[in-house]
Amino acid sequence: MTDSHIPKQRVHEWPVRVYYEDTDAAGVVYYANYLRFCERARTEWLRALNFHQQQLMRDEGLAFVVTRVEADYLKGAELDDALTVCSTIDSIGRVSLCFKQRIMRDQQTLFVASVTIACVDWARRRPARLPEKLKNLLEPPE
Amino acid sequence: MTDSHIPKQRVHEWPVRVYYEDTDAAGVVYYANYLRFCERARTEWLRALNFHQQQLMRDEGLAFVVTRVEADYLKGAELDDALTVCSTIDSIGRVSLCFKQRIMRDQQTLFVASVTIACVDWARRRPARLPEKLKNLLEPPE
Amino acid sequence: MTDSHIPKQRVHEWPVRVYYEDTDAAGVVYYANYLRFCERARTEWLRALNFHQQQLMRDEGLAFVVTRVEADYLKGAELDDALTVCSTIDSIGRVSLCFKQRIMRDQQTLFVASVTIACVDWARRRPARLPEKLKNLLEPPE
Amino acid sequence: MTDSHIPKQRVHEWPVRVYYEDTDAAGVVYYANYLRFCERARTEWLRALNFHQQQLMRDEGLAFVVTRVEADYLKGAELDDALTVCSTIDSIGRVSLCFKQRIMRDQQTLFVASVTIACVDWARRRPARLPEKLKNLLEPPE
Repeated sequence: MTDSHIPKQRVHEWPVRVYYEDTDAAGVVYYANYLRFCERARTEWLRALNFHQQQLMRDEGLAFVVTRVEADYLKGAELDDALTVCSTIDSIGRVSLCFKQRIMRDQQTLFVASVTIACVDWARRRPARLPEKLKNLLEPPE
Repeated sequence: MTDSHIPKQRVHEWPVRVYYEDTDAAGVVYYANYLRFCERARTEWLRALNFHQQQLMRDEGLAFVVTRVEADYLKGAELDDALTVCSTIDSIGRVSLCFKQRIMRDQQTLFVASVTIACVDWARRRPARLPEKLKNLLEPPE
Repeated sequence: MTDSHIPKQRVHEWPVRVYYEDTDAAGVVYYANYLRFCERARTEWLRALNFHQQQLMRDEGLAFVVTRVEADYLKGAELDDALTVCSTIDSIGRVSLCFKQRIMRDQQTLFVASVTIACVDWARRRPARLPEKLKNLLEPPE
Repeated sequence: MTDSHIPKQRVHEWPVRVYYEDTDAAGVVYYANYLRFCERARTEWLRALNFHQQQLMRDEGLAFVVTRVEADYLKGAELDDALTVCSTIDSIGRVSLCFKQRIMRDQQTLFVASVTIACVDWARRRPARLPEKLKNLLEPPE
């Protein structure tokens, strides 16, 4: 992503409630499940922008795949917690973009992650250019 | 399944270890996850019979779907437990078959379920006859 | 539950969105995950009634455990579906109660389940009387 | 982990089979689930070394928590794949250790992760020294 640059920071917020299914025997959210919460938030952000992944697959054969995750676990979320996933775009490249995602309980940050998503020509399993429409949505003209 | 009948009882056994991912904040296996264990055991039974579901889909467009579950939770499995899923065929019909599955910890039964699987023509989402090969595998000539 | 009886039917509705995490390679929601959706709905119903399970555990050492599930899978939910879990109380006994839960996509029923929950003295792992407060909440005086 | 150093590299290998529960509607393993596979492998390594996490909690009030994950997704694992999780110790510090984990399908690497685990005094939720016994097990005298 050498051609990446920082877009105007905008923040998407998505609420997540912690249920039994999310926790483990240590009494906190199982470490892999924070990635589920982050994916829900990314999906809802795209949906809010009226950008539909299934349509993109049907119409253009493109899919988004996670290629890299860097995650820091600061404090465990617990059963019944009302969390907020705060997402921003960290950078947008030619074939991939990077989300910065933060999971909050009230004013406390529990989890931070950088999640890189690449656009893939699914039939060939090859990298593909990000749709211009998506870049424009996430990166409005200044 | 009016034409169902009881085949020679044979038992398939499959070991399952309980990890953090399977448990919840109550310290026991989350109730939906017993169904995962059961599905692993059914899949491994078919695999052991050299019956491959992906091949069936590719070659004949057929898939198996669960249509009914009756499950009794007798005792909770816990972290690190070494469980065994014991599966038998309860009945075989024209388009569906019913597994009886029991999850054991040593000699103790923790969970019992009847799981009905139907064969489906996946493209049309219509019931389809069970493959003869499968019926023969599960129900050897007496 | 010989002393059970049918309370005034009231329906609790809870929305569930289907994400990638819920689906499997067959393109539909994995069969065990409908039970997660049902548990979220039961939890939210209790929460809406201002009945807190963690408080019940802390104050009285009582927990609710699922003891039986009967589930019929009618039609598969798919990625991005906006579902509704409709829950009613089917019966209330001395130590257990039975929920009837239905998962809908628009006007179509995809999944129906009866889920029996028992009250347990958690330290002794013994059945315990349902809290009167809960019975009253779910079963208002006629 | 300024006092970390590289121990003799030893590799622990753990087989993982991909079931429907692990996959999503894109036909590949859901991205969070690779972390489950990695955790199973770490647990089994400790078990093979006769090091029991539940006992550690009971006897010394210590738990291990994941504090950081760096993961690269190279290629998607698919239904029925027979994977191997190859784990090594990357570094051992005073309160934490870092695993390098690689998920293989035959000779092909699908996923690589660095997973940092910290030892925690669970009651106080404070960092605690790694048990000497564990350091010795993972780092035998030269």
